[in-house]
Amino acid sequence: MRDVSIIGTGQTPVGEHWDTSLRHLALEAIKSAAKEADIDHVDGLFVGNMLAGELSGQGNLGALIADFVGLRGVEAVTVEAASASGGAAARQAYLAVAGGVMDFAVVVGVEKLSDVVGSAAITAQATATDSDYEAAHGVTPLAIAAMMMRRYMHEYDAALADFASFSVNAHDNAATNPYAMFHNKLSVRSFVKAPLVADPINLFDAAAPADGAAAIILAPTAWARERGDGSIRIAASAAATDALALAERREPLWLAAAEKSAGAAYRQAGVTPGHIHLAELHDAATVLAALSLEACGFVERGGGVNFAKSGGITREGRLPISTLGGLKGRGDPGGATGVYQLVEVAQQLRGQAGPNQIAHARVGLAQSLGANGATAITHILMKDE
Amino acid sequence: MRDVSIIGTGQTPVGEHWDTSLRHLALEAIKSAAKEADIDHVDGLFVGNMLAGELSGQGNLGALIADFVGLRGVEAVTVEAASASGGAAARQAYLAVAGGVMDFAVVVGVEKLSDVVGSAAITAQATATDSDYEAAHGVTPLAIAAMMMRRYMHEYDAALADFASFSVNAHDNAATNPYAMFHNKLSVRSFVKAPLVADPINLFDAAAPADGAAAIILAPTAWARERGDGSIRIAASAAATDALALAERREPLWLAAAEKSAGAAYRQAGVTPGHIHLAELHDAATVLAALSLEACGFVERGGGVNFAKSGGITREGRLPISTLGGLKGRGDPGGATGVYQLVEVAQQLRGQAGPNQIAHARVGLAQSLGANGATAITHILMKDE
Repeated sequence: MRDVSIIGTGQTPVGEHWDTSLRHLALEAIKSAAKEADIDHVDGLFVGNMLAGELSGQGNLGALIADFVGLRGVEAVTVEAASASGGAAARQAYLAVAGGVMDFAVVVGVEKLSDVVGSAAITAQATATDSDYEAAHGVTPLAIAAMMMRRYMHEYDAALADFASFSVNAHDNAATNPYAMFHNKLSVRSFVKAPLVADPINLFDAAAPADGAAAIILAPTAWARERGDGSIRIAASAAATDALALAERREPLWLAAAEKSAGAAYRQAGVTPGHIHLAELHDAATVLAALSLEACGFVERGGGVNFAKSGGITREGRLPISTLGGLKGRGDPGGATGVYQLVEVAQQLRGQAGPNQIAHARVGLAQSLGANGATAITHILMKDE
Repeated sequence: MRDVSIIGTGQTPVGEHWDTSLRHLALEAIKSAAKEADIDHVDGLFVGNMLAGELSGQGNLGALIADFVGLRGVEAVTVEAASASGGAAARQAYLAVAGGVMDFAVVVGVEKLSDVVGSAAITAQATATDSDYEAAHGVTPLAIAAMMMRRYMHEYDAALADFASFSVNAHDNAATNPYAMFHNKLSVRSFVKAPLVADPINLFDAAAPADGAAAIILAPTAWARERGDGSIRIAASAAATDALALAERREPLWLAAAEKSAGAAYRQAGVTPGHIHLAELHDAATVLAALSLEACGFVERGGGVNFAKSGGITREGRLPISTLGGLKGRGDPGGATGVYQLVEVAQQLRGQAGPNQIAHARVGLAQSLGANGATAITHILMKDE
């Protein structure tokens, strides 16, 4: 095992890219990352994708994208773990470089969710639930999040308006991120009046399915240091799972996989939650942001919503989250999202987040959740000084 | 990098399992493998699957299967590379164990292709082609293989009957494999008279899409040796890609990815094609078996069909292939197929192939192809003595 660093990052704007195919989105992100990395060869490509087969009729994205970006012949594979696919692809690439099998690995998360609308889109999204015991009864991923939110409101005596701070913060930060899907600010008043999507989750509570691609390039830290242009070290990489079906989990309001993978990541990096300067969490719905804060140990159980309400998650707060918009503000391109999170944490640690920059950011956490927490991949990045 | 061994194998019969779900198939294969491996914990689960999202409405098989087989919490992920998904999942697990991140990794290939028939099944299979430039014009994976076969017949002056030996050999071997889909023998006469599927490929030329699951468990070779019950060492693991679209490949009759990954595998294992005692190749259509023999260097270019015709591929031949039926005789459960190949090579090296046993088998090769050769994963296994 050797240390691994991120030596290049790239991303496309997140949005509705009806005129751009999967391969073109991937190319755009990889090109930017390759320009930054400036390396003369690549040993492997890891694609994070969730629904290309279902929505674009395209499988085997590994070979397809390798060829299209000029890497024909290179080892390439697609990694899937529902909405954690991007984080999972990054972890597989990390394993290859850390283990010494590869020196330079490209990770690209790419997804097109907006081409298909209506019931076909819902059916595709529902593959992230337990198809026999949830989807078969009409349950979608967002419906599961809605049940979690309803339970949270009951258990911790929270009102709808109490969740607003997550979305307000996300839109505040997205407003100045040129790659984000939404640039409009959001008020608590708008939040509570938004039309319902899956009661109690409304339009401004849920992240929008979107299209986009993000890429990172990994290399051995020793190599990056020798070159000496201040890379970002992956101080920890950890993955864990939980039951897919909500009814099968030990506690519906506890993200056990998130807790397990974050805990393993803290141990690997030799840090505690208090050392983390910013976190990109999987805020596909506000309740997931709250539960992630709790599972990662940033706040006590049941304290997520109040922490957000009291300003703890803003750029000036104790633990800034969704610093470039998060899933809610940047948009949620499925299997690409986990790679966007890593790109954004790297941006912050490098001091390249522009108006969104967090002061003194040296340690950042990115956590990618699949299927409302059935899969959790946690990475901790550190500025390599 | 440390050596990795296979310490357990399991498989379900291949067939049409209408009454058994993905998770139950996976459980059956993993249970058998776990019984053989007899270990007290597992560090990770790697699922090879191609079409569960499209055909069973189920994504995130990693978390789902981990939970169902009693491994809730364990790191788990799905790996996809079209019909090479099983080989690709094995390679990811190999990377994790070889790199020292995991000690014990479970690989399960699982697929259900027979639940859905008609155009939906064809559409799903076609995700393995280039959707924009092939599937959009109605081209399916088998149609691509048919074009390759037609070209092969033209280029090397081969007749339909010349390809029969591949299927005859596959059925001969499947007849005595209790896990195989077909137990009927096949004559050259039946082969040439079979109804066409995609001209010139006929019913007895193409492997049947099927359901099934196969599993292997990996551990460090040093650990396996200490326990001392004769494990199978993974002497090489290599992957490569080519263009997805046939028209984009340098030569339609040359499996460049198969050549590249086999070449890398030979170098890793320190062997030449002449050292291989048996090979499980991706005979989804007979022409792919012929081209694989050529790309792997077992015969000269254009010599694959004649090699088979002269008996080179039978159990007593110079290079036995499809020794337990291959894709044609055992059946082709998509993303599970690559793991079946590894299980079968391990069976041979352990001397557990029953009536199908190859004499003096100590080095075996398994090659998993995705999308008619756009992805190729080659493993070389050796009896660890």
